[in-house]
Amino acid sequence: MENATRKLAIICSKGSLDMAYPGLILANAARMAGHDAMVFFTFWGLDIVNDKKVDHLHMSPLGNPSMPIPAMIAGLPGMEALATRMMVADMDKLEIPHVREMLENLADAGAELYACQLAMDMFKLEKKDLVPQVKDVISAMDFIDKSEGAQVIFV
Amino acid sequence: MENATRKLAIICSKGSLDMAYPGLILANAARMAGHDAMVFFTFWGLDIVNDKKVDHLHMSPLGNPSMPIPAMIAGLPGMEALATRMMVADMDKLEIPHVREMLENLADAGAELYACQLAMDMFKLEKKDLVPQVKDVISAMDFIDKSEGAQVIFV
Amino acid sequence: MENATRKLAIICSKGSLDMAYPGLILANAARMAGHDAMVFFTFWGLDIVNDKKVDHLHMSPLGNPSMPIPAMIAGLPGMEALATRMMVADMDKLEIPHVREMLENLADAGAELYACQLAMDMFKLEKKDLVPQVKDVISAMDFIDKSEGAQVIFV
Repeated sequence: MENATRKLAIICSKGSLDMAYPGLILANAARMAGHDAMVFFTFWGLDIVNDKKVDHLHMSPLGNPSMPIPAMIAGLPGMEALATRMMVADMDKLEIPHVREMLENLADAGAELYACQLAMDMFKLEKKDLVPQVKDVISAMDFIDKSEGAQVIFV
Repeated sequence: MENATRKLAIICSKGSLDMAYPGLILANAARMAGHDAMVFFTFWGLDIVNDKKVDHLHMSPLGNPSMPIPAMIAGLPGMEALATRMMVADMDKLEIPHVREMLENLADAGAELYACQLAMDMFKLEKKDLVPQVKDVISAMDFIDKSEGAQVIFV
Repeated sequence: MENATRKLAIICSKGSLDMAYPGLILANAARMAGHDAMVFFTFWGLDIVNDKKVDHLHMSPLGNPSMPIPAMIAGLPGMEALATRMMVADMDKLEIPHVREMLENLADAGAELYACQLAMDMFKLEKKDLVPQVKDVISAMDFIDKSEGAQVIFV
């Protein structure tokens, strides 16, 4: 028991830029510390591994009281793009890799990336629509199997 | 130790249709795999077990950059209902049960459903306002007790 | 092993009033039950321990279908403040302490509060900008170290 590998199973359920990073950063930190890490992309989180969307994840200033933009203005055309550009610029300054590069780093480091079958069906996606770092499309039952003994983190 | 039952304790804190499903689906998968599963409904998540609301959970296109609807339009009357109808239709096509039916299935399968006392007080609800599948109204302290040894998943 | 202390590691990633409470209430319940509890504030969750913001956390009625306010109206000036005042009044009636007081109580009870280095850099904050209850600013790697064996809860 004392030699059992520590394991993190992270579920990414949201596709906004600000909620894509926490799961990927935690998975990366787990791998750097030598722990097993798997990431399961489901519902809106599927956008993060959707090859057509991964480079265009947005951040909404609407419904997020932490952004200092009044709702009347936050809803105007262009404000979502502006909020997104601001966050991307901030991440660049801090030398945080873009999401696609983080996925590549994670897979290279041995983290296992999985997409949720049910979400794939809902959004009518096939395996070929995903970035190549996704190892497999699995069911919620498979996720339960694979996350045995893991610290499960739902983002 | 090696025969200890695996246990999942899921907290549902959001009442939108898209965030109701992940917790219920995970609880169901856990039960199907023979693990203990409990679901604790708190804050907005109380809507999921509110007998008057469970059949009318909505999905907001606002503040969700994964939905392909610009904020100016997403805020117009009717758009929330439209987004909701689209998701319900998708779930129906995939033969995913509606939320009320999922709660019935979960209780039948032996998952334990609990409502949060503090949230009940905030929203001025009584046990009789909830679907009958809710076993009890419990405090955060009770939840901590019951989730001993569990994989805790906060949705 | 059987005498190992139970441990909860809670990640607060959101800065809205309604999402500040669940993490703090769970940490408090864990401490009251005699378990170790740490709270890691990251991304928007940093607002919760930002000395200038902690007393002014807001709640957005936008993008939250559980609030009975149509999107057209929810976006009008003043509606966010109204929703916030309503929730604060509700919490007061239930004698739930305000967020700053909860942080004080948590630190007094021995919960450990940490801020995320990366989020601090993103928002250009320094340790002196935080409430004094924050013990340290740590990296994601440090969080992984400190959460060894813990039940991890991502809010």
